[in-house]
Amino acid sequence: MAHYQVICLSCQAVQDEAAMTSPAVGCTRCGGPLGFHYDYQDVRWDGRFGRTMWRYWRLLPVPDPTQLVTLGEGGTPLLPSRMLTGARVYLKDETRNPTGSHKDRPLSVAINHARRMGATASFVVSTGSTGISNAALAACAGLKSVVLMTQGTPAARVYPMYALGSQVVEVEGAIDDLIEQVIQLCRRHGLYLSSTSRASNPYQAEGNKTIAYELVEELGRAPDWVVVPVGGGGTLAGLLRGFQDLQRLGHVERLPRLVGVVPRDYNALEVAFQRGLTRWEEVLALPYHDCPPSILVKLAHSYPPDGMEALEAVRACGGWFLSVTDEEALAAQEACGRQEGLYVEPSTGAALAGAARLLQGGEVRPEETVVVLVSGSGFRENFVTMERRPLEKRTTTVQKLETVLLAMA
Amino acid sequence: MAHYQVICLSCQAVQDEAAMTSPAVGCTRCGGPLGFHYDYQDVRWDGRFGRTMWRYWRLLPVPDPTQLVTLGEGGTPLLPSRMLTGARVYLKDETRNPTGSHKDRPLSVAINHARRMGATASFVVSTGSTGISNAALAACAGLKSVVLMTQGTPAARVYPMYALGSQVVEVEGAIDDLIEQVIQLCRRHGLYLSSTSRASNPYQAEGNKTIAYELVEELGRAPDWVVVPVGGGGTLAGLLRGFQDLQRLGHVERLPRLVGVVPRDYNALEVAFQRGLTRWEEVLALPYHDCPPSILVKLAHSYPPDGMEALEAVRACGGWFLSVTDEEALAAQEACGRQEGLYVEPSTGAALAGAARLLQGGEVRPEETVVVLVSGSGFRENFVTMERRPLEKRTTTVQKLETVLLAMA
Repeated sequence: MAHYQVICLSCQAVQDEAAMTSPAVGCTRCGGPLGFHYDYQDVRWDGRFGRTMWRYWRLLPVPDPTQLVTLGEGGTPLLPSRMLTGARVYLKDETRNPTGSHKDRPLSVAINHARRMGATASFVVSTGSTGISNAALAACAGLKSVVLMTQGTPAARVYPMYALGSQVVEVEGAIDDLIEQVIQLCRRHGLYLSSTSRASNPYQAEGNKTIAYELVEELGRAPDWVVVPVGGGGTLAGLLRGFQDLQRLGHVERLPRLVGVVPRDYNALEVAFQRGLTRWEEVLALPYHDCPPSILVKLAHSYPPDGMEALEAVRACGGWFLSVTDEEALAAQEACGRQEGLYVEPSTGAALAGAARLLQGGEVRPEETVVVLVSGSGFRENFVTMERRPLEKRTTTVQKLETVLLAMA
Repeated sequence: MAHYQVICLSCQAVQDEAAMTSPAVGCTRCGGPLGFHYDYQDVRWDGRFGRTMWRYWRLLPVPDPTQLVTLGEGGTPLLPSRMLTGARVYLKDETRNPTGSHKDRPLSVAINHARRMGATASFVVSTGSTGISNAALAACAGLKSVVLMTQGTPAARVYPMYALGSQVVEVEGAIDDLIEQVIQLCRRHGLYLSSTSRASNPYQAEGNKTIAYELVEELGRAPDWVVVPVGGGGTLAGLLRGFQDLQRLGHVERLPRLVGVVPRDYNALEVAFQRGLTRWEEVLALPYHDCPPSILVKLAHSYPPDGMEALEAVRACGGWFLSVTDEEALAAQEACGRQEGLYVEPSTGAALAGAARLLQGGEVRPEETVVVLVSGSGFRENFVTMERRPLEKRTTTVQKLETVLLAMA
């Protein structure tokens, strides 16, 4: 018997996983969003998978762990922070995943499911980390990868997907139309969609739970706070479900408070939280149709697809949302390079700036533990950072080298 | 008592480590190159350091492991290869190190030594991985990083060093002059030099041994073959010393055969091996003064600084050198992306092309184990790869999406 069941999150109806034609389908009874129930009676971590996220397969939707394909996702370091002070602050360094971001976790769950379903290709809509993860993990599994994006995405951002064997398709038109169309087409034609929203694929959403499992293993307890950059909302929501699993298993006493960080110009969740909005229609009525440019492209969702889940998660654990500007994010990214030795993407800079604000706010006690999710590597966004803060270098001659070296020592 | 001694590799004189003013000095008695002797009586791996390379500190020159600073170097996955067949082939994925290359291992040893010596800055001559590792690890240790390079290095390659807080200095003139000048100046003024050659710094050279320790732990025995991209020669030489340590400890019965891969136009070591040259002066007499352009910049040493050590290492274990062209390296890099799901740097492509040649050569038996050192990530060399193989993408409209998706499934 499988250690999990696919269920409808609305009507709780158990779904027939074997009859599922695409991960983008809803409940066969009510059309609601899908999720999972696990057997909590027999959960133990599996040492055969080393430090990777797959040692947690008993709380992931994989029936047979011996059939897994993996590049070794997860098992990322937890590093003490130097730049953030005022509490015990740690950085969960997700740049150490196979393609340099935490998205490798959800995509690994998706691709393994795709393979099990007999899919020949994995589709995603993405201009960023998800597209790169899809390309890498599909290649490793022997599947085709197709990444769809709107026109005008910089070639340097897209190139790694291509280098990893993905087909790259630019689609004329608005991003929201594209996302909706792709969900409908994948549903209709039984194509495998691996985009990281629950409506696209509920399997991938489970991968984010493993970050919580690792944090508790590394700390020996739950942290008191976790600061998370929020784009679509699925990472934050998945983190909370991970901690809830551990609470249910008796591994942690109480949930950490999750603080979601969003871009200032895309702060619908912050406003929704502050106003106490409880229905998604109310969030959709907030005025975020402008889409101003932001360096935080990976977080810049007007109406985050998993926003309602993220809102509920933050409320369930006593957390909140806060927003930061591009400038704050870039300053924090720079400080992280200089003080921590980690070259992170601007979105991670947003989380670090948010954590600094949290630590200055007086809510966190000095003996408490704060974890900041370092979501992705700056090496993949090198061209973006270079544009905003050009290289300063010094030029000298071999003859003058002695003076220069002594001045710099 | 310390578990190691600094010794002269020429006259075996024990050095007074506390009196050392720079890692770039030679033997106080004869001026010879320095190395280390370890106490093999009490070697066990230290679980406090998780899966990182620091669990092997008893075979590294660090007196007090509780004082280490680390970003979590090492502990990288060993992945079964899909693209290379004919034996049991594995990829040692060193892209999973903190800055995406195996250079984080030697630099971590160097930076911890620099900190112990009270240095305020770590200098390197580098246009590549070493410069990035130096920047990251110096930042993590609270030291300044200074990276020196010749003029004309592409800004995109240098930028991560700057983003990690390093000072970047371009020096007019030839690279060989620069290297020699910097060694002399660091020696004279007691500056800390972390360049990855023994003459610059014998401490860093020990970090490469940990790759061998990990391979044996992961495989449960020594591999039969290890294919290594060779630039300066120190990585290959360090690997062999690692296996020799384990042989001495009784962990492995015999040494693997190491095969070093060099660029076709910079194949002095291949020629020296084939001709049986035994003195470095003979190697220096080979005609490699032209310096033709190569995409394999990280491997393109006319006369590799640790070449003699690498040559002796290959001979000691029954291995050899072979050379590959830029085109072969690029084709292997591309295949690695498409078939393995790993976006690697061109230098790693060279190693993969070399491994393919080895596997076709009939020397390797099908039941033997071959490990290829996947030395560095392609994300940091994205701009180089883009220039050589431009992005191919398809453009369509939302209306035509259905046809496009079905054709790609």
